[in-house]
Amino acid sequence: MTGKVFLIGAGPGDPELLTLRAMRMLQAADAVVFDRLVSPEILALAPEGVLKVPVGKSADNHPVPQERINKILVDLALEGRTVARLKGGDPLIFGRGSEEAEHLAAHGIAVEYAPGITAAQGAAAATGVPLTHRGLATGVRYVTGHRQANGTLDLDWNSLASAETTLVVYMGVANMGQIAMRLVAEGLSETTPVLAIANATTPREKRLFSQLGRIALDVRDAELTAPVLFVIGKVVTLSAEWSAQDLKS
Amino acid sequence: MTGKVFLIGAGPGDPELLTLRAMRMLQAADAVVFDRLVSPEILALAPEGVLKVPVGKSADNHPVPQERINKILVDLALEGRTVARLKGGDPLIFGRGSEEAEHLAAHGIAVEYAPGITAAQGAAAATGVPLTHRGLATGVRYVTGHRQANGTLDLDWNSLASAETTLVVYMGVANMGQIAMRLVAEGLSETTPVLAIANATTPREKRLFSQLGRIALDVRDAELTAPVLFVIGKVVTLSAEWSAQDLKS
Repeated sequence: MTGKVFLIGAGPGDPELLTLRAMRMLQAADAVVFDRLVSPEILALAPEGVLKVPVGKSADNHPVPQERINKILVDLALEGRTVARLKGGDPLIFGRGSEEAEHLAAHGIAVEYAPGITAAQGAAAATGVPLTHRGLATGVRYVTGHRQANGTLDLDWNSLASAETTLVVYMGVANMGQIAMRLVAEGLSETTPVLAIANATTPREKRLFSQLGRIALDVRDAELTAPVLFVIGKVVTLSAEWSAQDLKS
Repeated sequence: MTGKVFLIGAGPGDPELLTLRAMRMLQAADAVVFDRLVSPEILALAPEGVLKVPVGKSADNHPVPQERINKILVDLALEGRTVARLKGGDPLIFGRGSEEAEHLAAHGIAVEYAPGITAAQGAAAATGVPLTHRGLATGVRYVTGHRQANGTLDLDWNSLASAETTLVVYMGVANMGQIAMRLVAEGLSETTPVLAIANATTPREKRLFSQLGRIALDVRDAELTAPVLFVIGKVVTLSAEWSAQDLKS
């Protein structure tokens, strides 16, 4: 009998930020296929003895291409397994969950989703920096800062520089210098507040408060390493830690 | 002894979409202060006999002004209570959680956050419409469609019409005609796919697939009532239900 695949958002890292549904699905699985961004604390919640298949990808290192991941999921489901496909954050926000779902559907394999707390929400809850706030940000926007296969940044520059919108950049640590320069060129102030946060909500969390004009240098000096999330906008000033910063101007 | 306040994201409606942390905090509370958008299924999870204080707001009906909500939270905490402040979605995305946190901090009351699955994520997981997808949407943006006190829409029109970004409009049902007209005027096609979804992830969920040029009429004909979430962009075509639509052109 054909199995099924749960496409599960594992959230930002803290196991307590899993949804009840994600927890139910994970504990019902007999195979777990997981990304590099899924924290060890969450993997430890999988049932004893289940098959665990790492398919992690990093910016410089692509051990398992997406086509291979798709095939692994199909093969496991065709063996009759109940597969927990664990992804950092939410499977439908920069998670390629819909690509995997399309492939599985084409093979007649049932898919169910568990949404997850995305990194921006984890960072907000950890730091008290809201993603929207009356008078400071009327909305929020999530983009990625990684390069496409053709080397260009995957960003819609002409609409990005909106001072009334919180901009969250995922996977941006390698290209933050260029991103910040372009945002300033499009009209954002060099003093726009920025929160950079690595491994938010985990014991390995590191955070840095800075400004757009010097964020790339500050991140380098602080030796923040991927995954780093950037929250850009006036809402960053609402963190209790912001006023404590001795910001160079 | 002064109590504390948990600012809890109750998610889109399905109790299974609460995080483990939200559940822990809710069950530790001896007072629950809740918005209209918190589903009855979730309220039923509060401990027996706790004080329950409704502070719901709707677009036409403001029974409890924000200042009064702030005072209720402070008073309950000063009585020594552990207060679960339940908000639909995520407290830091259109939830005014940071306004309440500022007020509580000014009174020396400790606040802890539980992030929540926001309505856009609930709608995505329920329908299979991803918020980003390679080749269709490089990012996602959340805005609100309600009017400010001065009657204007809280939207940054000149950067909104981005065909490569999924646009999610919260609280937009009353003004969708005007919003759609402005988006088309700014350059989005009238045939841009739209998903309108009311009460996503609850037993009362209603969904409608349409296009930007006629979404306001379709929503009226289908008698969708608030809260309605709109997901606008090419990602909507990835739902299994999209191809089944007999769209008038």
